[in-house]
Amino acid sequence: MTMKSDVEIARAAQLRPIAEIAGTLGIAEEHIEPYGRYKAKLTPAALAGANGANGKLILVTAINPTPAGEGKTTTSVGLADALHRQGKKTVVALREPSLGPCFGMKGGAAGGGYAQVVPMEDINLHFTGDFHAITTAHNLLAALIDNHIFQGNALDLDVNRIVWKRVLDINDRALRHVVTGLGGRVHGIPRESGFDITVASEMMAILCLSDGLTDMKRRLGRILIGWTRGGRPVHADELGATGALTLLFKDAIKPNLVQTIGGTPAFIHGGPFANIAHGCSSVMATKYALKCVDYVVTEAGFGADLGAEKFFDIKCRLAGLSPNAVVIVATVRALKMNGGVPKDALGTENLDALRRGAANLEKHIENVGKYGVPAVVAVNVFPTDTEAELALLTELCARLGVTAVRSEVWAKGGEGGLALADAVMDALGKPADFHPIYDAKKSIAEKIETIAKEIYGADGVDFTDAAQKQMAEMETLGMTETPVCMAKTQYSLSDNPALLGRPAGFRITVRELRASCGAGFVVALTGNVLTMPGLPKVPAAMGMDITEDGVITGLF
Amino acid sequence: MTMKSDVEIARAAQLRPIAEIAGTLGIAEEHIEPYGRYKAKLTPAALAGANGANGKLILVTAINPTPAGEGKTTTSVGLADALHRQGKKTVVALREPSLGPCFGMKGGAAGGGYAQVVPMEDINLHFTGDFHAITTAHNLLAALIDNHIFQGNALDLDVNRIVWKRVLDINDRALRHVVTGLGGRVHGIPRESGFDITVASEMMAILCLSDGLTDMKRRLGRILIGWTRGGRPVHADELGATGALTLLFKDAIKPNLVQTIGGTPAFIHGGPFANIAHGCSSVMATKYALKCVDYVVTEAGFGADLGAEKFFDIKCRLAGLSPNAVVIVATVRALKMNGGVPKDALGTENLDALRRGAANLEKHIENVGKYGVPAVVAVNVFPTDTEAELALLTELCARLGVTAVRSEVWAKGGEGGLALADAVMDALGKPADFHPIYDAKKSIAEKIETIAKEIYGADGVDFTDAAQKQMAEMETLGMTETPVCMAKTQYSLSDNPALLGRPAGFRITVRELRASCGAGFVVALTGNVLTMPGLPKVPAAMGMDITEDGVITGLF
Repeated sequence: MTMKSDVEIARAAQLRPIAEIAGTLGIAEEHIEPYGRYKAKLTPAALAGANGANGKLILVTAINPTPAGEGKTTTSVGLADALHRQGKKTVVALREPSLGPCFGMKGGAAGGGYAQVVPMEDINLHFTGDFHAITTAHNLLAALIDNHIFQGNALDLDVNRIVWKRVLDINDRALRHVVTGLGGRVHGIPRESGFDITVASEMMAILCLSDGLTDMKRRLGRILIGWTRGGRPVHADELGATGALTLLFKDAIKPNLVQTIGGTPAFIHGGPFANIAHGCSSVMATKYALKCVDYVVTEAGFGADLGAEKFFDIKCRLAGLSPNAVVIVATVRALKMNGGVPKDALGTENLDALRRGAANLEKHIENVGKYGVPAVVAVNVFPTDTEAELALLTELCARLGVTAVRSEVWAKGGEGGLALADAVMDALGKPADFHPIYDAKKSIAEKIETIAKEIYGADGVDFTDAAQKQMAEMETLGMTETPVCMAKTQYSLSDNPALLGRPAGFRITVRELRASCGAGFVVALTGNVLTMPGLPKVPAAMGMDITEDGVITGLF
Repeated sequence: MTMKSDVEIARAAQLRPIAEIAGTLGIAEEHIEPYGRYKAKLTPAALAGANGANGKLILVTAINPTPAGEGKTTTSVGLADALHRQGKKTVVALREPSLGPCFGMKGGAAGGGYAQVVPMEDINLHFTGDFHAITTAHNLLAALIDNHIFQGNALDLDVNRIVWKRVLDINDRALRHVVTGLGGRVHGIPRESGFDITVASEMMAILCLSDGLTDMKRRLGRILIGWTRGGRPVHADELGATGALTLLFKDAIKPNLVQTIGGTPAFIHGGPFANIAHGCSSVMATKYALKCVDYVVTEAGFGADLGAEKFFDIKCRLAGLSPNAVVIVATVRALKMNGGVPKDALGTENLDALRRGAANLEKHIENVGKYGVPAVVAVNVFPTDTEAELALLTELCARLGVTAVRSEVWAKGGEGGLALADAVMDALGKPADFHPIYDAKKSIAEKIETIAKEIYGADGVDFTDAAQKQMAEMETLGMTETPVCMAKTQYSLSDNPALLGRPAGFRITVRELRASCGAGFVVALTGNVLTMPGLPKVPAAMGMDITEDGVITGLF
C-alpha cells in the first residue's frame, strides 16, 4: 500500500455541510456566513444561540521543537477527534496557516495524516481572507504614514523613527530591508524601511486579542507608528483613519468554522507569530468555543517556554481565561536530538540520549506545574521509535508524576488518540488553580527576569544599553504595566539555539524592547529574530499543481 | 428629505438569498459556492445547467470623462435593472472595485444612488478575495525571482533587466520606486524595483482573458519576468512554479454572482487597469452570462477611445465575442467641459459650449460605427442640466442618426432607465456586423497607426528610439501578431490630456512598448502612465467608520 499524501487523505474525507456542523454547536444556520460549502464565519449572533456550555480549556504545547515541528496541530486535532468519538462535545481551536511558509518550507499547516482540518487546501491557501485583511489594513496604515509626510507632515514625524513597516504574506527575504520613496519629488520621501510577513503584524496580534469591533478599533488606534522630531510618540489614531482600518476587519473579526476529518467542529482564527507576538489563535474563537461545547482543545506556537508561557501570561491573563489541562507533545526523535544525537542518526535506538534529552521535557513539565495546571505528555509516535524507547519515556514521565501516553493520531485519526483523551480526562479531574507566572504591575525588568529564571532556568538577564534606553521609553508610552512578550529562539530553553536539553548556568540578553501598544504588550527581543522568512533553495511551491478539474498535488 | 448616501441606500435594500438569484439563471444551488448570504462563486458545473440562452451583448462606454467619471457603472446597472423590470432575462457583468481608490479618492465603485450592486460594502472591500489572490500570486512570483538570483542564479538573470515588479492593492506612491535586497549578504541581492497597484498586474489581465485553469496556467507560464545577461528573454515557467501560481487562483477564477438593488443578477469578476491592461471584466463571466440570459450589459474602462477600443480589439477578438449594441454615456457637464467651460462654471447653462463639446461625443459615435455595432447615447442627467441643454443634446445626436435618451437611474433605479432600455432594444433590432478595427497580423506599427488615425483622429504616430528598439524585441518574444493594448490619457482623444473636445492636427508619440506575453498583447505607452496611484491630501479613508453592530459610514 502506498502512503497517501495529506491532500489525498483530506480530499477523500466525507465532509458534512457546514450548517450541519454549526447545528451540533447549537448555532442556527442564519447565524453563520458560509464561505463555500464547508467553511463559515460565525456572526456575533451565533453566540446567543450557542449551546450555552461552560467548557474546559485544554492547551496543547510541546517540548523545544526540531526544525520540522513536533506535531502540535496534528495532536490537537487528533485529541479533539478522540474526545468527539467518545461522545464528548468538543471543539478544536487552531491558528490559521500562513501562505509564506506554505510555499516556502512547510507545504501546509492544517494538521497531518488522519488528523487534519478540512478542506485543507482552502485552509492552507486563502481560507476566508482574514490574513489578506491584515495585509491590506497594515499596508493602508503604512501608506497613510508616508502620505502624511509627503503632504506636509503636520505631525512633524521623524522619517528616521517610523516604526511601522509594511507586510506581505509571502516569504521574501529581499523585502526585509528596502528604501522606499525613491524616484524624485512626486514619488514620496525617501526613507529606510522593510517588510515583515503578515503573521508578524501587530494587527494580527490585535485581531487575536480583541473581543469585538469596538475593542479592536481602540487597539488599532493605539498602535505606535513612530516618533516626532521632538521625541513624542505618535499613534495610529492621529492619522484619522482608525475607522477605515477597523472597517477592513469587519469580516476578519468573525471566527471561522470548519471541521476535522473526524467530524469535530474546528474554530480556526488568527495566527500571530509566536516570537514577536503571542502565537495563539483568537480570544473570540476560544470564548465562542467555550460557550458551545464542554471541551475546547487549543494550541500555542513553538515549545512550552515560548508558546505556553505566552498563552498563560498574555492570552489567558488579558482574556480572563482559565485553562484546565495541558498536553505537552514530545517525540522520541526530538528528545534524542535534545540529548545530542545528530539529525541523521535519529532513526537508531539510543536510550542514553533519550534519557539525557528528556531533561528538556522534565523542565517543561515543571514549568506547566508552576502555572497551576495539570499536565499530560503525548508521545507523538514515529515508525522509527522502538518499544524500549517508548517504555523508557513512559517510565521517566511516571517518575515525574505525569502520565505519558502514545498518540497515533497521524496514522489513525481520533482512534489513535483515545488513550490520550482518557489521560486528559483524568487530568481534568484534578484540581486546577491557574495563575500567571508574574504580576503585570512589576517593572519590565522584573517581569522579564521572572520568565527567564522561572521558565527558562536562566541565572539572570542582561539588558543592552539600547534596551535600557527603550525601557525608559516604555514609561513615556504608558507600557510599564502590560505583559511582556518574549522573542527568543524556539530551539532552546536559553537564547542560544545551540544549547539543547536543559541548559544551566546561562544568562539571557535582551537586546531590544518594542512597544506593541495596540496589542497591549512589550516585546523583549533576545538574539536575532527574523520577522520575514526567506525561501529555501527548492521552495515547496515548485512541486505544486492543479488540474482543470481542481485536483491538487504537492500541498502537504 | 435629506439625500441618502450610497451605503445607506444599499443597506436599506431588500436582498434575496443568492441561491434564489442563481435559480433565476437556471443554476442549481449545488453549483454555486456561497460567500456569506448574498455573494457566491459560480463553479464550472454551473454552466452545464444554465438556462442555455444565447444572449445579446451590450457594451456601456462613455465620452472622454471628467476626473469624477461619467457614471458608466451606474448606467450599466440601471440599464440592466430597466431591462429586468421589463421582464427580460438580463445580467449585468461588471469589474470588481479596487481597494486602493476606495480608500484614496473615490470611496467605492459599485454604481451609485439607486443603481448599485449589493452588498456594496462587501463588493467594495475584500469581496470574495479575487484581488488578494492576484496580489499573492504576483508577489510569490517576485519572491521566486529574487530567491532564484540569491540561490545562485542558474538562469543567469540580469538583475538590471528584471521586468516583474511587486503589487499591492493600496494607493501608495512611496512604493513606486524602491531598492530591495538591502541589509547585507543574507538578505538578498540589492536591485532597483517598484510596486504597482494590484489591478495593474498582468495576472489581473490574465485572469480576465483566461477561459479556465489550464488556459490560465499556460498564460501564467508565459509571463515575461526579465532577460538574461546574454539577452535571452526569461518566462515565469522557467522558475518551475507555474502550478503553484495557478493553484492560488483556484477560487479566483470562478465568476462572482451578486445582485443589483433592483434584483437583477450581477456577475462581477476581475478588473484590470484600463490603461496598461484592457480594462474589461472577465471573459468567463461574460460567456457564462450569455449562456444564462438573453441580455448581458457590460462595461469597459475610461472613454470609448480606450475602453471600447480595447473591449472590441482585445477582449471580443480574443474571446470570439460579438457585441450587439453599444451605449455611450454622456453628461451635459462633461460635454461643456470638453467645450472649454472651467470646472466651477459647469452648473451654468451654456449652449455654445455644449455644442462645441459635443464634437467629442460625435467622434465616439463615429468610432463605434466603424466597428459595425449600433449605438445609443445615454444622457446621465444631473440636477444642474437645463431643459434647453438636454433638448440641444438630443437634437445634435439625432442629426448624427443616433438616439439620445435621458437616463435617471441614479435617482430612480431601473424605472429611470426604461427609456434607455427601449432605445437599446431598438438598437438591438438593427443589423450588427462586428469586426475589429485592425488585423492582428499587421505589424505593430501599423496596428498602432490604425488605432491612432481611425479612433483618435491623429495624423500619425511617432515612435521614440526606445520604442523602436523594443519593437525589434517583440520579434524575439514572438509578440508581433497579438493585439496592441494602448496606454493613453483618458481625458483626451489625443495623448495630451489638455486637448479636449475633438482635437485635430495632432500626432501620437509612443515612448515605450511592453510585452504582456501571458495576457497576449503588446502594451504601447504614450505619455506618462502611472501604475501606482498616490493618496490625496485627505484620503477617503479619513471619513470611514464602522460600529460594533456593523453600521458603516463614509463608504460611497
